[in-house]
Amino acid sequence: MKEAIHYAKKSLLSDDVPIGCVIVKNNKIIGYGYNKKEKLHSPIAHAEIMAINMASKNLNSYHLEGSDIYVTLEPCLMCVGAILNSRIRNLYFGARNKRFGAVVSHQKIEKLITNHNISYESGICEKECANLITKFFLELRKRSK
Amino acid sequence: MKEAIHYAKKSLLSDDVPIGCVIVKNNKIIGYGYNKKEKLHSPIAHAEIMAINMASKNLNSYHLEGSDIYVTLEPCLMCVGAILNSRIRNLYFGARNKRFGAVVSHQKIEKLITNHNISYESGICEKECANLITKFFLELRKRSK
Repeated sequence: MKEAIHYAKKSLLSDDVPIGCVIVKNNKIIGYGYNKKEKLHSPIAHAEIMAINMASKNLNSYHLEGSDIYVTLEPCLMCVGAILNSRIRNLYFGARNKRFGAVVSHQKIEKLITNHNISYESGICEKECANLITKFFLELRKRSK
Repeated sequence: MKEAIHYAKKSLLSDDVPIGCVIVKNNKIIGYGYNKKEKLHSPIAHAEIMAINMASKNLNSYHLEGSDIYVTLEPCLMCVGAILNSRIRNLYFGARNKRFGAVVSHQKIEKLITNHNISYESGICEKECANLITKFFLELRKRSK
């Protein structure tokens, strides 16, 4: 998760909400990503999507069986769908996302009808992940005054 | 939908399941895409994701309010999430997707907890959209014998 936090900070370069992600297989990082929604003007450019795309290219496969994903914020519905499509094994996330989280917050993953079972654990480095985002919005508000 | 079918046929060039998509705003196509999952070795490379990315680039915005999406096959959970994230107004699709469809088939969209309301209509050029896919799999099986 420390690596995911490292990438989250890169989102700040483009004034994007700091969210980072890494995908690990056999103790190696095979993909990473960070939120570039503002930078790319794209609703698709979430950290998880970037990381899955990179991992798929690296493995030359659209299935990432045996991989684990670490993301600083609870994934949204699109990203949960992408994680399920890619057959990732375990999902670890830091802070909860009350507005858009589709694992435990806004939508419960257990209530989704899925083709692939995934284990998840929340609250990994939760404070650090959440503080990054809180600080970002505080500074954004200060600047906009 | 005829245009979406036109793009679906382009998936065949890379031996991908033929699924096509267009996004329309003010009677103009602002984005299109077709399934490139095999071509790009990516679980993200669905027709809808490609089309949303193009439309966002064209409008220079990650919100596609007032846009309608036409896709030959019922979208999966990831694509439904992407469509909701991009605030598309109406979703029109052709064939149903019993295994992965997250609108009316495998998962009901009404049962998802979402931040954005979307209208949908299914069965547009349904036979033509479904036949494309059936024919693709028949030929694939023939070749693999």
